Amino acid sequence: MDRFHAYVDANEDRFLAQLKNLCSQPSVAAQKLGLTETADMVLEMLQAIGADARLIQVAGAPPVVYGEMGSGDRTLVVYDHYDVQPPEPLDQWESEPFSPEIRQGFLYGRGVSDNKGDLVSRLQAIEAYQATVGELPLKVKFFFEGEEEIGSPHLAQFVAENGELLLGADGLLWEGAAKDMCGRPALYLGLKGIQYLELRVKGASRDIHSSWAPLIPNPVWRLVWALNTLKDERDRITVDGLMDHVAEPPMEEMELLKKIPFEEEQIRKDFGIPQFLGGAEGIDAVKRLLYAPTCTICGIWAGYTGEGSKTVLPSEAMVKLDFRLVPDLEPELVLDLLRKHLDRRGFEDVDIVPMSGEHPAQSSPDAPVARAAVEAAKLVYGRDPVVYPLMAGSGPMYELSQALGIPAVSGVGVGHAKSRIHAPNENIRLSDYIQAIKYMGEFMRLFAASD
Amino acid sequence: MDRFHAYVDANEDRFLAQLKNLCSQPSVAAQKLGLTETADMVLEMLQAIGADARLIQVAGAPPVVYGEMGSGDRTLVVYDHYDVQPPEPLDQWESEPFSPEIRQGFLYGRGVSDNKGDLVSRLQAIEAYQATVGELPLKVKFFFEGEEEIGSPHLAQFVAENGELLLGADGLLWEGAAKDMCGRPALYLGLKGIQYLELRVKGASRDIHSSWAPLIPNPVWRLVWALNTLKDERDRITVDGLMDHVAEPPMEEMELLKKIPFEEEQIRKDFGIPQFLGGAEGIDAVKRLLYAPTCTICGIWAGYTGEGSKTVLPSEAMVKLDFRLVPDLEPELVLDLLRKHLDRRGFEDVDIVPMSGEHPAQSSPDAPVARAAVEAAKLVYGRDPVVYPLMAGSGPMYELSQALGIPAVSGVGVGHAKSRIHAPNENIRLSDYIQAIKYMGEFMRLFAASD
Repeated sequence: MDRFHAYVDANEDRFLAQLKNLCSQPSVAAQKLGLTETADMVLEMLQAIGADARLIQVAGAPPVVYGEMGSGDRTLVVYDHYDVQPPEPLDQWESEPFSPEIRQGFLYGRGVSDNKGDLVSRLQAIEAYQATVGELPLKVKFFFEGEEEIGSPHLAQFVAENGELLLGADGLLWEGAAKDMCGRPALYLGLKGIQYLELRVKGASRDIHSSWAPLIPNPVWRLVWALNTLKDERDRITVDGLMDHVAEPPMEEMELLKKIPFEEEQIRKDFGIPQFLGGAEGIDAVKRLLYAPTCTICGIWAGYTGEGSKTVLPSEAMVKLDFRLVPDLEPELVLDLLRKHLDRRGFEDVDIVPMSGEHPAQSSPDAPVARAAVEAAKLVYGRDPVVYPLMAGSGPMYELSQALGIPAVSGVGVGHAKSRIHAPNENIRLSDYIQAIKYMGEFMRLFAASD
Repeated sequence: MDRFHAYVDANEDRFLAQLKNLCSQPSVAAQKLGLTETADMVLEMLQAIGADARLIQVAGAPPVVYGEMGSGDRTLVVYDHYDVQPPEPLDQWESEPFSPEIRQGFLYGRGVSDNKGDLVSRLQAIEAYQATVGELPLKVKFFFEGEEEIGSPHLAQFVAENGELLLGADGLLWEGAAKDMCGRPALYLGLKGIQYLELRVKGASRDIHSSWAPLIPNPVWRLVWALNTLKDERDRITVDGLMDHVAEPPMEEMELLKKIPFEEEQIRKDFGIPQFLGGAEGIDAVKRLLYAPTCTICGIWAGYTGEGSKTVLPSEAMVKLDFRLVPDLEPELVLDLLRKHLDRRGFEDVDIVPMSGEHPAQSSPDAPVARAAVEAAKLVYGRDPVVYPLMAGSGPMYELSQALGIPAVSGVGVGHAKSRIHAPNENIRLSDYIQAIKYMGEFMRLFAASD
C-alpha cells in the first residue's frame, strides 16, 4: 500500500479542492436548499471513479445517490449524507459558510466535517486505490441521502421500496467518528434510538382569569402531575415496565467501556455543574451515558411567560419529551408503555403526540466490518482506536443495519473534537483529512480480506 | 329625596356629557399615558362640587387626587381610580376607545365602567344632593388613585405617608360592583389577597444536547418535582401549614352565600368544561370560589417550545404561580411557608422570586357602611342586593380598609355583567348609570343617619 499512501499525499491539493467544490454548493435539508444540485454533483463524482451510479427517488424526498462498484467476497455499504445543517447564525462565521477557506492548517465551511468531508474522502480513497493497487478487492455500494440533518424521514420508506439493493451486504460503514479531545481516533458500533413526543393537555375553552381557579381545571397542573409519575426525584424513569427492557451491558462491552477515556473534570467544568447526576464518576458515568435510557424534558410551555405578572388560568399546556432508547427499547414500545402508564393513573386526558422516532442500533465488535475498522485505525493512526459500543446520541443507523441484518461501524472520520459540527465555523484539520483517506483505503483492504 | 331623584333625571344629558368628557382623556397606567392630565381634570371636577381638593404626590407615582367636603357624625372615604386598562386590541373596538359613543341605550368607551363611570357618578350624586336637599349630612373624603390597573404599587407607601388623612373614618366606599347576569344589584364586603411569584431553577451553564441527559441535571424536572409537592391530584394545596390558616366561613357568611345566585350551568358551558373541580355544585361551588385559597400555575416555560422537535437539555426553568389568599393568609406568610416547605424537601435550589402581593380584606356585613349600602340598594333598585362576603378576585382594598381600621363595601356601581371591563367595547347601560347616581345619594343619606 505504499504507493497508495504516496498517491494520497501527492494529490492533497486536488483532493482538498474537490472537497471545497462540493462544500461550496449549499444543501440545507431544513431549508430545502440546493439538494438536487448537490445530488447531481455527488452522482458525477461517483461516476468519475467508475461507479455504476444513479439517483433513486422516494416520493417527497430529495434523491438518494446510489452507486455500485468493485467485486469480491465482501460487500460493503457506505452510508453518508450530502445535506448539511443550516449555516445560521451567519454573523458568527469568520468566513462564508459556503465559501470554504483554508486557514492555518484547517479548512472552514459548512459540511467540511459533517458529512461531506467523510463522503468525499471515501471516494478519493477509492480513486487512489484503483490508481495504485488496482481493482477494488470488494464490492462497494454507496448510499448517500439528503435528509439526515432533519431526521431521515424517508429512510424507512426507501428501505421498504429498495432494500433489496443492500440485502446480503457484509458490513456498513456509517459516516465517521471524530477524533477525541486528545487526538485519539474513535469509532462506534451503535447509536441510541429516540422517541420524541409532545404531551398536551387541554382545560377550559379559553384562558380565563385566575380568580376562577377554585372551580376550573388547570391543564398545567394536570401536566405536572402526569410528568411527576414518569421520573422520580432520583432521576429514575418510572414509566411502568420501561426499565424491564433495559439490560446491563454484556461483559465484552464493559471491557470496551474501561478503555474509553473520559475527561470528566473537564466536562463538568465546561457544563458548569459540581457533579454528575447521582454522583456518577469514572466508568460508572461512562456506562450511564451510553447505556441508560433517558426521559428528558426538552421544553415546556403554558400560559403567560413574559415579564411581570398576569393572573391567567391557562387553557392548554404542552411539554416536549425525548426518550433516548438503548437496545431492546423500540420507539413504538415506549409510546405504548407511556399510553398505558398514563391511562392506568387516570391521565386519559393527557394526549401523546408522537414526533420523530428512531430505533436503537448496535453491532458486535466481533463483526468483520468492526474488526477491520479497528485494525485499519491501528495501521494508519499508530494507536488503538477508542471503540464506543454505543453512542449517547441517535441516528437512522437501524434502518440500514439491523433492519437489513448488516453489521455497522462508523469508521474513523475526518473530524476532531472541536470541529463545531452544526455550529458556526465548522472545520477540519487538513492532516486529519488526508489520514481519513488513507484510513478508508486500509479499511477496504482489510475488510475485503477478512474471514 | 324626590327632588334629588328628579334633578338627576333632568340632568341626564349633562351628566353623561361629563362622563364622556373624562373618558375622552386617555389615562393608561400600564403605558404611563395621560395620567397627570386626567388627575387635573378630576381635581377640577372635585373643586366644581365644592370639595377642598388637591393632588398628593408619592415618589414615582401619578398623583392621588384627594378631597374633602361636608360635615356630620359620619365620615365616608370614597375610593376610585382614574386610570384605565390599555385599550388594545384596537381593531376589536366598534368605536374609538377614547371617543365615547352612545349606541342604543349603551355608552361605549374605555373606562366608562371601570372605573371612571363609578367615580363621576358619585360626584354627580353630591352635586344633585347639594342642589336639591342641601348641605351634605356627612363628611366625605375622596381618594382617587392612578395606578389601580397595574396593582397599586405605591398605595402602601401613600398610606404610610398620608394615612392620617383617612384615620377615624367610619366607612369606605370601594369602586362599585356590577349588576349580575340577571340584572340584580350586587355589592361585596371583601377581596381575596394574592401573592404572585416565580419559581426558578438553574442547571448547566448553557443549554446542551439532550444526549447528555444521563449525567447532567435537568432543571425542568427539578421544577416539576418541586411543583408536584405544592398541590395534589385532588387539587388540594399541600404546602406545609398553609391550610392551617384557612377557616370555614362563619355562619352569618354562609347565610349570605345561600342568597348568592350562581348560574353554574351557564358558567360551565361558557368555559367549556363538563364539571367544576371536585364535582362541586351549588352552594359548595360558591363557597369554594370565594373561600378557597388557590395555587395556580399561570405560566410555565423552559427549553424549546417552537414547532417540531429540538433535542435540548435546558439550562433553566421558570414557573409563574399565583396564590389567592383568604382572610388570615397574608402574602408574607405564604412566602415564608413556601420557602420552608421547599427547603424541607431538598429544593433549596428552587429560587422564589416574589412579585406583587396584596393582603386579603374583608369587612362585616353588620358595619354601618355595609348596612347602608344594602338599604340604599333596596330603595333604589326595589330588591335585595346580592351581597358577596368576599370576591374571588383581588385588589388593594386592605391598605385603605383593614390597615386603617375602616370597614369597606363596594356599593352598587354603574356596570353590568357584560360591561366587558378590561376588554374591547367596554360599556354601560345609560339607565344603570342614572340609577347609580341615585344610589349614591340614598347611600350617603342612610349612612349619615346610621347608628
